[in-house]
Amino acid sequence: MVADVIDSDSWRLWPAGDKRLMVDKQVYRNLSTVTDKDLDTVKRNFEWVVEQLDHLVPPNEHLVVIVMGSPADKAHCENIQKYCNELGLKSEVRCTSAHKTTEYTLDMISFYEGLNVPLVFIAVAGRSNGLGPVISGNTDYPVINCPPGPKEDLQRDVWSSLNVPSGLGCSTVVYPETAALCAAQNIALTNYIVWAKLRARRLGFLETLPRADKEIRSTH
Amino acid sequence: MVADVIDSDSWRLWPAGDKRLMVDKQVYRNLSTVTDKDLDTVKRNFEWVVEQLDHLVPPNEHLVVIVMGSPADKAHCENIQKYCNELGLKSEVRCTSAHKTTEYTLDMISFYEGLNVPLVFIAVAGRSNGLGPVISGNTDYPVINCPPGPKEDLQRDVWSSLNVPSGLGCSTVVYPETAALCAAQNIALTNYIVWAKLRARRLGFLETLPRADKEIRSTH
Amino acid sequence: MVADVIDSDSWRLWPAGDKRLMVDKQVYRNLSTVTDKDLDTVKRNFEWVVEQLDHLVPPNEHLVVIVMGSPADKAHCENIQKYCNELGLKSEVRCTSAHKTTEYTLDMISFYEGLNVPLVFIAVAGRSNGLGPVISGNTDYPVINCPPGPKEDLQRDVWSSLNVPSGLGCSTVVYPETAALCAAQNIALTNYIVWAKLRARRLGFLETLPRADKEIRSTH
Amino acid sequence: MVADVIDSDSWRLWPAGDKRLMVDKQVYRNLSTVTDKDLDTVKRNFEWVVEQLDHLVPPNEHLVVIVMGSPADKAHCENIQKYCNELGLKSEVRCTSAHKTTEYTLDMISFYEGLNVPLVFIAVAGRSNGLGPVISGNTDYPVINCPPGPKEDLQRDVWSSLNVPSGLGCSTVVYPETAALCAAQNIALTNYIVWAKLRARRLGFLETLPRADKEIRSTH
Amino acid sequence: MVADVIDSDSWRLWPAGDKRLMVDKQVYRNLSTVTDKDLDTVKRNFEWVVEQLDHLVPPNEHLVVIVMGSPADKAHCENIQKYCNELGLKSEVRCTSAHKTTEYTLDMISFYEGLNVPLVFIAVAGRSNGLGPVISGNTDYPVINCPPGPKEDLQRDVWSSLNVPSGLGCSTVVYPETAALCAAQNIALTNYIVWAKLRARRLGFLETLPRADKEIRSTH
Amino acid sequence: MVADVIDSDSWRLWPAGDKRLMVDKQVYRNLSTVTDKDLDTVKRNFEWVVEQLDHLVPPNEHLVVIVMGSPADKAHCENIQKYCNELGLKSEVRCTSAHKTTEYTLDMISFYEGLNVPLVFIAVAGRSNGLGPVISGNTDYPVINCPPGPKEDLQRDVWSSLNVPSGLGCSTVVYPETAALCAAQNIALTNYIVWAKLRARRLGFLETLPRADKEIRSTH
Amino acid sequence: MVADVIDSDSWRLWPAGDKRLMVDKQVYRNLSTVTDKDLDTVKRNFEWVVEQLDHLVPPNEHLVVIVMGSPADKAHCENIQKYCNELGLKSEVRCTSAHKTTEYTLDMISFYEGLNVPLVFIAVAGRSNGLGPVISGNTDYPVINCPPGPKEDLQRDVWSSLNVPSGLGCSTVVYPETAALCAAQNIALTNYIVWAKLRARRLGFLETLPRADKEIRSTH
Amino acid sequence: MVADVIDSDSWRLWPAGDKRLMVDKQVYRNLSTVTDKDLDTVKRNFEWVVEQLDHLVPPNEHLVVIVMGSPADKAHCENIQKYCNELGLKSEVRCTSAHKTTEYTLDMISFYEGLNVPLVFIAVAGRSNGLGPVISGNTDYPVINCPPGPKEDLQRDVWSSLNVPSGLGCSTVVYPETAALCAAQNIALTNYIVWAKLRARRLGFLETLPRADKEIRSTH
Repeated sequence: MVADVIDSDSWRLWPAGDKRLMVDKQVYRNLSTVTDKDLDTVKRNFEWVVEQLDHLVPPNEHLVVIVMGSPADKAHCENIQKYCNELGLKSEVRCTSAHKTTEYTLDMISFYEGLNVPLVFIAVAGRSNGLGPVISGNTDYPVINCPPGPKEDLQRDVWSSLNVPSGLGCSTVVYPETAALCAAQNIALTNYIVWAKLRARRLGFLETLPRADKEIRSTH
Repeated sequence: MVADVIDSDSWRLWPAGDKRLMVDKQVYRNLSTVTDKDLDTVKRNFEWVVEQLDHLVPPNEHLVVIVMGSPADKAHCENIQKYCNELGLKSEVRCTSAHKTTEYTLDMISFYEGLNVPLVFIAVAGRSNGLGPVISGNTDYPVINCPPGPKEDLQRDVWSSLNVPSGLGCSTVVYPETAALCAAQNIALTNYIVWAKLRARRLGFLETLPRADKEIRSTH
Repeated sequence: MVADVIDSDSWRLWPAGDKRLMVDKQVYRNLSTVTDKDLDTVKRNFEWVVEQLDHLVPPNEHLVVIVMGSPADKAHCENIQKYCNELGLKSEVRCTSAHKTTEYTLDMISFYEGLNVPLVFIAVAGRSNGLGPVISGNTDYPVINCPPGPKEDLQRDVWSSLNVPSGLGCSTVVYPETAALCAAQNIALTNYIVWAKLRARRLGFLETLPRADKEIRSTH
Repeated sequence: MVADVIDSDSWRLWPAGDKRLMVDKQVYRNLSTVTDKDLDTVKRNFEWVVEQLDHLVPPNEHLVVIVMGSPADKAHCENIQKYCNELGLKSEVRCTSAHKTTEYTLDMISFYEGLNVPLVFIAVAGRSNGLGPVISGNTDYPVINCPPGPKEDLQRDVWSSLNVPSGLGCSTVVYPETAALCAAQNIALTNYIVWAKLRARRLGFLETLPRADKEIRSTH
Repeated sequence: MVADVIDSDSWRLWPAGDKRLMVDKQVYRNLSTVTDKDLDTVKRNFEWVVEQLDHLVPPNEHLVVIVMGSPADKAHCENIQKYCNELGLKSEVRCTSAHKTTEYTLDMISFYEGLNVPLVFIAVAGRSNGLGPVISGNTDYPVINCPPGPKEDLQRDVWSSLNVPSGLGCSTVVYPETAALCAAQNIALTNYIVWAKLRARRLGFLETLPRADKEIRSTH
Repeated sequence: MVADVIDSDSWRLWPAGDKRLMVDKQVYRNLSTVTDKDLDTVKRNFEWVVEQLDHLVPPNEHLVVIVMGSPADKAHCENIQKYCNELGLKSEVRCTSAHKTTEYTLDMISFYEGLNVPLVFIAVAGRSNGLGPVISGNTDYPVINCPPGPKEDLQRDVWSSLNVPSGLGCSTVVYPETAALCAAQNIALTNYIVWAKLRARRLGFLETLPRADKEIRSTH
Repeated sequence: MVADVIDSDSWRLWPAGDKRLMVDKQVYRNLSTVTDKDLDTVKRNFEWVVEQLDHLVPPNEHLVVIVMGSPADKAHCENIQKYCNELGLKSEVRCTSAHKTTEYTLDMISFYEGLNVPLVFIAVAGRSNGLGPVISGNTDYPVINCPPGPKEDLQRDVWSSLNVPSGLGCSTVVYPETAALCAAQNIALTNYIVWAKLRARRLGFLETLPRADKEIRSTH
Repeated sequence: MVADVIDSDSWRLWPAGDKRLMVDKQVYRNLSTVTDKDLDTVKRNFEWVVEQLDHLVPPNEHLVVIVMGSPADKAHCENIQKYCNELGLKSEVRCTSAHKTTEYTLDMISFYEGLNVPLVFIAVAGRSNGLGPVISGNTDYPVINCPPGPKEDLQRDVWSSLNVPSGLGCSTVVYPETAALCAAQNIALTNYIVWAKLRARRLGFLETLPRADKEIRSTH
């Protein structure tokens, strides 16, 4: 049943032709009638989706490899991993320097390429980011740069991630949550569970933001 | 045969156990013996790979949607599409403004979601980039921001692409080639032809850069 | 009586031909005679103006809509609203994300357009500001961007507010007080009470700054 | 007739209950059917609106005062005035320096305040902008800073416009068109002709952008 | 005696042909012999100069006018005044806003011009500095901009002081001490007491820095 | 006669009690009557002042020393000297590098100190400005930094002029004209001819700017 | 024995043909077998190298001269010296200002040039760095600029170190450790003990980073 | 004879006790007597030094390795090599990408380390500089980053060279001439010919700058 129903196209029919989730989008059409009951309907639907996802078997293997250039960036990587966990992603956290342990870095890339599963690398390297570009130059899997800060250095150091030489294909984000979401969007191309997690999460905004709006409006 | 041989893990065995491609990596081990013959071997292997790819049937459908916020960015998008073509990606170029034709933008996203194929959006919007974040907030497919310039404005305008609010998962690149490569890396997770195009292209560096090195060294 | 007397042109005659308020401007002509009595005259006039305004009936309806992109910006919006209150402006505080709840945002704009009163929108969105430009692209009322900070990010993030695409007409300020003053100046074009509040407030500078000057001068 | 029909609330009923303009918004609902005929309907409606506006009598007086700090900024001001003309705004272009002819500047402000019509000032001053803040400190009408460039200096010089002291209410834009649009949005609060010009212009985007999209899509 | 001896040219002969002060410069010629006795000679000479200055009658009147744009900058101005006092400068601290009390500012300039003594203005205005340029456009005395901070805003706000329109002649410094020193150098052109204070102070560096060097060297 | 009449205080009485120059300030009081005749009166007065200055004997000696760090900055220095000439300043142009010919620089400073006339140094050094700070650390005369560009480097290189160590008193300007005006304001403290040149020049703005305003207003 | 064995070429044979150190590089070839025993082998080798270095006699003299422009930078210089000590470098810490005690600075340079040993200067000067360029213009030994901060000023002040005039050969680093490492690399060209210290230290990364990786991997 | 005379300490005695070169420094002591004859003496001495250097045999081997990350940087590297040639340095120009041909880069480093001569690496890599840091992490020889531009990108891209991770010891310069001078200063620690070239070149400034000064002074 799952294979038929849950993919990016037929979500609107889900679950099994039930149009209740469509209804929640109509709720917002007439702003004057956003009642608590409407919001609760959305919320219940949303929670139901999340629960269902826990019963599904993962369709295939995948791995998000979070690589830090220095042990000092461990907290940043754990933050990324926390978001990965919430999105149903499998991940590993590793440590190697493209500058100081270059061969170890190349071996690490080879090791993960040999696993034969869809991979996404998230490169976490402060100051001059050699890690993401060196990984990207030695693999064809997606590489997402997510510099660890400190925040006040980001404005200048982000260019070592963004302004990569021609021929390299790594992209850049500036928040751990964004890195995990990007990785999830990539993996979701081959994994409907992750895709459903993303959609359920995004559906949640349709409940949380209008509820926040309602509270704020009522008190100002 | 293809299904057995060409995937991310068994490339080293390709084609069919022939170790010639491995050889080319050993060439660089002893720097004093990079002969023209060695480089030609690499080059011929590389060309053979590229040729073979043209005979393979695409394993499944996919689409890269390149969206510009203004007709003024057409040349930038055509440049991205040119790189997509080289990497074997199917792409469409579209035009809509998240600010001025917001509903049209939402309808366009729905239209592509309804196609039921792996999608990657590349958002091309100059000045304040509302397009990429609005698309990313309304889909779960990967969205890659690739601001069109002019180059001297990039340093400040790129932050409207990079510094997205919490909950959004779009990433950013600054060159058309990088955007196409990122899209290809995403699609390659489900498409071995695109994956092979990427690998063949990257293999090419092992021939072109040492040849350039040899020429430069001989004249200085 | 009010209609004859209080408009932008005849303020100098106000109240009812009394030239005392003109006198206070002459006070500053001869710097050597700024006595405490002179400053007190200005101050009493100024206070009298403020008191009178409380007895007048608003000439028509209006509304300042302060919209935040995230509940995290509530304090910033309350600060704007506090200044609006001081200037006699009616305001509402709302919450919606142009990225994550795009349709809800469009519906919110339609709702306020339907109220049929002079409107000013103040858009409060941190990081990449999609909110102000999306509102401005979907209404013809004034839209004032007032990014919420943090202050150290303002220098780069303000460009997502300032550097809007062609065809959009939103403007930008960097302080909550400035946003409220701009909104008041807009509303004052059709509302003499708000206009008088602005003038009385500005007249206050002629008393407070010279008094501060006098105190500082006497102690240094 | 006009008073009944053309205001911000009843535009949807305009002209006289004809729902054709509503239709054009429905056109975009089903993306697969944007035919040339649909776009032409929108276009004809749009042109009809523009024509009708030329027959209406302005409801009241107003003035946009475009002030430059140096004769060198004449072209920039003429550009702003061109956009003002297109939006049905009356405008004057003036020249005075807040630094070098301070009293002349104060007299100029008094002169316009004495005209007793809704005013908007647009301040055009390169380098350190003293003009906009000095005008704003001496009037209660809206003041819009629009620095004249050169563009490469904007990033640092714009702060003399943006970062105004407490108590000042001027706002800032970076393009001549944006300045004219802001001025029009302010005047439109009291002038339905200008309001209608703005709406017709914005309605035009619903025709021009989808047409551009259609052309681009068909050739890529 | 004073008139013969103390001017910028004959300092080397001072006091009264005694060449001891020349000696202190020779001390540094042979680095290996910087004894404590040598440094003490310099120090005693230096102290003698300072003492003598207290017995001299000022040759003429002068005034440094430190003007702040807001009472919030009082501490910054007091800091400047403290340095002025140390250099023997007479100074007054004033408060006026070029934006909000423009005429009061013009009157203040006229008042000081009427004093008929050599003047230097130091303008202290945060954010967009209109004060220094407006003063400079309305006087021919030197105007020194010394923005009050906060320090992290200096990099962008200093341009409203530095990038003045053509025809204005104000200069800029970033520290209170530098402002006082600049003012002293200007006044010293007509006042040998201030000139001597400056020279004695600068002579002090020849004692304090080598002493610091000696201490540091001995402990590392 | 001159000594009685031309000083900073009695300018308003000049020439010899003739109040015509006062009149020109009253001209601007009533904006509606700025006739060509009024402007011509101002202009003739202004020209008469300039002519008279040519017949006066300089009251004392002075010198502006324009020092460049490299022969490449000659054009920039000539530009400064041109403005100095227009303001009646005596100047010399010199070349020395604080980095490469340090002792030559120190000797040059000593040489000018020995001239025993009021001095102003203008330091012109591109890239890292060591010249101005080294001169300022070795003299007590005013030192004005005026970096030669190129303009696009100014934003970062100006800090080597602005951010001087404690104890140094040099100030900074960014235009050749501003450097000459600052030097003139300094010299004018002891030289009424230069002072009168400055005042006549500034008086000129009261004629040229209103004339420009009149022309612009009449054609827009 | 030492002279034969320890130089940059024969390190791989060291000590005395023992290939154990080569082994440690092979360890990383097969990522799946990085056992604790392997890492311990590397570590023991590394420790052995460090111990041996303590028994060797320095091959010749050398000196690193760390010069600060102000006593306020003492802590920064001590930090540099600490790293110098760890690398076996002899160093002295000095204090002189290129601006305020220019001749003393020139004498200091002459003094060290007279020592007739290989020298490296490290120039530590905050704000506008005149010290490094003045030293570099007066010697032919390497000069390394290492600005002392504060960190938030580095971005603009570093240009007074980087953007030196033509003809100067000083280089720039931003961390005390980097300055010491650069000095060591320079001295190592003539001193095998320092060279060996550098190599042993770099060899250490091959043990510490994989160990950190192993720990991180095991807990995530 | 040469070995006795030309080293860094005895230059002042050179050639063979002749004090003429000392004389030229005394020339500048009395600024009023810089005659053409004095300058010619300096010039002839300077030329004599340069000629003598051509007859000397290099004392030992050395090599400057100029490595570019892309063939596009060839002109920049040739420029560096031109300056190296002028300073008597032996150099080679190579091409490899740390990102795209990582192993080839590591092999290249090993190759040069095996040459057993004093080495200096100059790394030329545009955009994100991975080359210099990767070389520096894999050798103990000096590594000098010299980014190739374009100049307008330098301000942000230089940080990928400057802001290297802890443990790396590469330094940075921004001009080809500076890179060559730094390399020469390093090699000069072990090579008196290069040292003498540097000193002769620096001595040249004592002739060229005063001559330029003399010409400029005589015409202004």
